[in-house]
Amino acid sequence: MRLARFTHNDNFGYAVIESNQVKVLSGHPIGELQFTGEVLDLSDVRLLAPVIPSKIICIGKNYREHSLEMGTEPPSEPLFFFKPTTSIIGPEDFIRIPSQSNDVQHESELAIVISRLCKDVPLGRVSDVILGYTCANDVTARDLQFRDGQWARSKGFDTFCPLGPWIETELSNAQDTKIESRLNGAITQQASTSEMVHTIAELVSWVSHHMTLLPGDVILTGSPAGMSKMVSADVVEVEITGIGTLRNKVVAYE
Amino acid sequence: MRLARFTHNDNFGYAVIESNQVKVLSGHPIGELQFTGEVLDLSDVRLLAPVIPSKIICIGKNYREHSLEMGTEPPSEPLFFFKPTTSIIGPEDFIRIPSQSNDVQHESELAIVISRLCKDVPLGRVSDVILGYTCANDVTARDLQFRDGQWARSKGFDTFCPLGPWIETELSNAQDTKIESRLNGAITQQASTSEMVHTIAELVSWVSHHMTLLPGDVILTGSPAGMSKMVSADVVEVEITGIGTLRNKVVAYE
Repeated sequence: MRLARFTHNDNFGYAVIESNQVKVLSGHPIGELQFTGEVLDLSDVRLLAPVIPSKIICIGKNYREHSLEMGTEPPSEPLFFFKPTTSIIGPEDFIRIPSQSNDVQHESELAIVISRLCKDVPLGRVSDVILGYTCANDVTARDLQFRDGQWARSKGFDTFCPLGPWIETELSNAQDTKIESRLNGAITQQASTSEMVHTIAELVSWVSHHMTLLPGDVILTGSPAGMSKMVSADVVEVEITGIGTLRNKVVAYE
Repeated sequence: MRLARFTHNDNFGYAVIESNQVKVLSGHPIGELQFTGEVLDLSDVRLLAPVIPSKIICIGKNYREHSLEMGTEPPSEPLFFFKPTTSIIGPEDFIRIPSQSNDVQHESELAIVISRLCKDVPLGRVSDVILGYTCANDVTARDLQFRDGQWARSKGFDTFCPLGPWIETELSNAQDTKIESRLNGAITQQASTSEMVHTIAELVSWVSHHMTLLPGDVILTGSPAGMSKMVSADVVEVEITGIGTLRNKVVAYE
């Protein structure tokens, strides 16, 4: 099932997407679903980031090839950092290159969406706390990342966390599906989620042993290799097989 | 004026504190204040963290002596990182030492509370976007901080961000007031906010040039020197002259 958030004229809310139909929900999609009965056409609505998290936890260096292109072997334990929620944008929204950076890059990542308040989740219970998966772009000002040491600034600008196009709740092969980036149509990243150093279950359990997770919280599972700079007027796509394609345009900050 | 958040029997909300009186507000305290007319006794209510931010931005190494005890000169530009909102607790709440760390330390900090949605705030306009100031403890698992490199984990555990006891909206000398920590009554940190490497105005302007700030967002302005380990049953206090004292007890995670 595909859960989306959308606007359409004065309508604003959540929906289930079935092929080209947008089946509008009353309330939010965590818990039992209630349909209003209204059905819209997918081509008529504007999709938003599919979730409003309280926090975004991002895993660093979770694909070996990317860790090596960043200059180190992957860490033995999951390494995480945060992006602020003000960095979130939705499908087709513009990624804005800030004046402070000359090297803004995309990072395509599988994003986990949490379904319930949880803490200290055992490995074997992780599937109970996952609502589903969406595509994410962990946009990074690479020059500032290396300059600061801490990664908060380089990954925290407004528009630096595209999410979408929807949450797929039935991605049975989340740990072995294809993830691909395209920049102006040319493939820049391509990997299988089976190449993750730490698995989805390990990541959720690990993070939840450090902090309480809330419904809607998002965990980005790390980027494969293929660091690529984006410039104004570029179009970047994150495609994950079984979910869909998250597409954003790029514009320089004036 | 002192703005607080409190619970009292089935009452829960915001209030203005005047000496020992708790003057209850209807709604929230950002914007025009509306009093319900109810007045409670301060000794009867439980104070909560005075604000519910969308994000907590923390400045690292903003006092030279602390930067030196961390092993480096202060950075030439403000360096920031995030704490998750799940780390917030209020006055008198317990700081819980997690099983993953053997060296949890307190860091007393002046916290800025933002009053309005803002971006790219010029230095001269910063006072327009500050609601007031409160005391913060940037609790840090020092061993994990050095092990990870990234600071998100070591500073992100539940209970690692005590805030309070209230927001002082008229701290005219915020840039030259005394900040002190006491561990079981003994002074462990003592400095003036005049010793900050980057001033309050510089920090707010800097952060707002990187991301949108929302009403209630909190900026921690960095810790003075005096790294001190806390253990179970300790009592830690952050006192800032002109605001008040934030007091928390410590307990080890079982």
